[in-house]
Amino acid sequence: MKKNNTEEKLKIHFTKDLTDKERATFETGIKLGALYHILCGIPINTNENVIRSIENGIEQAISCQPYVKSVKINLRRENLKGIKENEFDYDEISGKTIEADLVVQFRKVEVKAKIEWIKELKYPLMYISELKVLEK
Amino acid sequence: MKKNNTEEKLKIHFTKDLTDKERATFETGIKLGALYHILCGIPINTNENVIRSIENGIEQAISCQPYVKSVKINLRRENLKGIKENEFDYDEISGKTIEADLVVQFRKVEVKAKIEWIKELKYPLMYISELKVLEK
Amino acid sequence: MKKNNTEEKLKIHFTKDLTDKERATFETGIKLGALYHILCGIPINTNENVIRSIENGIEQAISCQPYVKSVKINLRRENLKGIKENEFDYDEISGKTIEADLVVQFRKVEVKAKIEWIKELKYPLMYISELKVLEK
Amino acid sequence: MKKNNTEEKLKIHFTKDLTDKERATFETGIKLGALYHILCGIPINTNENVIRSIENGIEQAISCQPYVKSVKINLRRENLKGIKENEFDYDEISGKTIEADLVVQFRKVEVKAKIEWIKELKYPLMYISELKVLEK
Repeated sequence: MKKNNTEEKLKIHFTKDLTDKERATFETGIKLGALYHILCGIPINTNENVIRSIENGIEQAISCQPYVKSVKINLRRENLKGIKENEFDYDEISGKTIEADLVVQFRKVEVKAKIEWIKELKYPLMYISELKVLEK
Repeated sequence: MKKNNTEEKLKIHFTKDLTDKERATFETGIKLGALYHILCGIPINTNENVIRSIENGIEQAISCQPYVKSVKINLRRENLKGIKENEFDYDEISGKTIEADLVVQFRKVEVKAKIEWIKELKYPLMYISELKVLEK
Repeated sequence: MKKNNTEEKLKIHFTKDLTDKERATFETGIKLGALYHILCGIPINTNENVIRSIENGIEQAISCQPYVKSVKINLRRENLKGIKENEFDYDEISGKTIEADLVVQFRKVEVKAKIEWIKELKYPLMYISELKVLEK
Repeated sequence: MKKNNTEEKLKIHFTKDLTDKERATFETGIKLGALYHILCGIPINTNENVIRSIENGIEQAISCQPYVKSVKINLRRENLKGIKENEFDYDEISGKTIEADLVVQFRKVEVKAKIEWIKELKYPLMYISELKVLEK
């Protein structure tokens, strides 16, 4: 099935008065919510090869989803523990560790968004840093 | 910390030109993405008590998140198998089973959204069915 | 398909020299690993109704799996924060919060097992507290 | 903390009459249960680079856990769909797709285990294919 056909078939489910920008921020939220909950609880340690493999694996997975233009996960090394000298010395990915940059495009609208741990509030904030209409 | 203080502190991270509607649809997407990935893979069978307990548990969990006004999960019984006569006769929650209704409110904007399995496209669509500014 | 038929069909995959006790502890491990990773990342706050609904939902889910005789989840209230006065004041389930008791029966072997946060080691230990052959 | 110290501190929680083999199969079960539930729901398509990145990322993650000697994930390509020509044409990892080989060592006991989709029973079986005491 062609992409445009599918989009038309899905569009009928959405309320008519939704702008492309509102739709684009909605799609962005979906991807951030998914990315966060896929990462939560995954075992990890401070080995750079381990960290990069996990980042890369989940980046590739999120890239499969509709409207994702790019995604970059940057797990915060300084919040991880574990050196695998001790069998039990490993960690699990949680909000404190997750940092990610996402670019979503819906039609001509491009959204740049981020997940970041806000230390002061002890909160893994998901926010939109840029919202623009692409010229072309 | 008071709610308004926190909101002010978080707001500075967002791009200035984001409307309340765009922010509201973003927050809605986050919750749907989370809800979907929390449910995926949970063991289940056709026992009504089991199904309702899982629905209720995850509804309560999603309700803890910011801006969630209400959430109703309705796992599709007709797509589940398993009767627990046979030890191995159970199922796992997947896109085909997940149906949910979510109402999010950001400031005066209310968003009604849904997750629904679109049979024709074999796709678990997340969409916005209503977007309105509350009068008051 | 009858339970005994299914068990026979599955048994051929296992190495012949596995005792019922070894099989029983294997099945116990599977359920604890699943339980832990299903719970990780679920949003929660200190509201007793929220906590009990989540505990109950995941207990019912784990009970669907083969050989599970009983399961009791006891999320550690003292390690949770969030009162929902502030939109952002909620928490997420992690190793520090998860405590659970599981009883598994494979044939005549009964296993009692537990997940518990070991403070001194900052480690969510899964262990077997009792292993016995039921008389009957 | 040294590994042996930690192991001693954890050992006191286990029932005394547990053999090394029973402990080894328990630890094996934990890892398979975790691996399965971490993979469930991750977006994927048929692109070989995407598949290998996900396999590699989760292999590295599971390798961080205690007693894991090796782990090889082999997602079943023939059960995946999605070519990313169409935005919506992707898939999600589920029991049908997950195949994995795990080797666990506890003291001198080595366990070889597997997750495999049993077509006839429509069941993602986790089983032990070899259990032996290493000479040395």
